[in-house]
Amino acid sequence: MSQKGANTERELFHMFWKNNWACMRAAGSGNTTMPAPDLIAGNKNNLLAIECKSTKKTSIYLKKQEIEQLTNFSNILNATSILAMRFNNNGWYFLNIEKLPKNKKGNYTITLKLCKEQGINFQELIGKYKQLKL
Amino acid sequence: MSQKGANTERELFHMFWKNNWACMRAAGSGNTTMPAPDLIAGNKNNLLAIECKSTKKTSIYLKKQEIEQLTNFSNILNATSILAMRFNNNGWYFLNIEKLPKNKKGNYTITLKLCKEQGINFQELIGKYKQLKL
Repeated sequence: MSQKGANTERELFHMFWKNNWACMRAAGSGNTTMPAPDLIAGNKNNLLAIECKSTKKTSIYLKKQEIEQLTNFSNILNATSILAMRFNNNGWYFLNIEKLPKNKKGNYTITLKLCKEQGINFQELIGKYKQLKL
Repeated sequence: MSQKGANTERELFHMFWKNNWACMRAAGSGNTTMPAPDLIAGNKNNLLAIECKSTKKTSIYLKKQEIEQLTNFSNILNATSILAMRFNNNGWYFLNIEKLPKNKKGNYTITLKLCKEQGINFQELIGKYKQLKL
C-alpha cells in the first residue's frame, strides 16, 4: 500500500474511534492470499467491512475480483461491505458495495458524480445508517 | 511483535479460514494507541476478538491493561474476547477472557494447568461454541 493509502485509512480509523465506534486496521495484504477489507468498524448494532480508496482524480477503477473478495469476506461475517472514497478537496463518501453499478465486464468505475448521488457522509454512516440510501 | 508471535497469529488465522470462518489480522500495534485484538474472527453467529499468545514455558503473565483494552474493544463491537494460548508441544487452548482469574493487583497468570481445566480446543471454539465452558 502507498503511504497515501495508509494515511487515508488511518484518518478514517480515527474518525470511527472519535465517535465511539471500534475500528481495526488489517495487516498488510502482502502477508496472505485470503480476502480482507482495509478496516473493520462497528458498534453494537453494525458491523462494516470497509475498502478504503483515495484519489486526486474524479474517478477510480476497481476490479471485479477486489470487490468479490470483500463481499465474500462480509458474507461469512454477516457484515456490510462499504466502499469509503476520499476525493481530494471533496471529503469522504460511503457507498454500499452491493449496489455499485458494474460495467460490462463486471468491473467498476467509481466517479465523484456517482458518490455525490449515491454516497452518504460519515455522520450518516455512523448515525443514521438504517434510514438512508445504503 | 516477535517473528514467533506473528507466526502463531498466522497459524490461527489459517485455521479459521480452513473452517470457513472469516478472519482478519490487525495491523501492527505500533501504529496506534487505540485498543485492538490480534485477530478478529467470525461467522454469521459469532464474532470473536482474539488475543494470541505463545510460549515455550508453562505459563505467561498478562497485564491488567492489556486485558482491559481487549475487553473495551469487544464491548463496543459486541464481540466475545478470547485468549488464544499456544504452548509448545501442547497445542492450542481458548479461554473466555471475562472469566480469567485475576491476581491481587488485577493482572493475570495463565498457566497450562488453567488452560487444561478451563480452556476449550479449536474445534469446540468454532463448532460448539455455545454449549461449552466459555
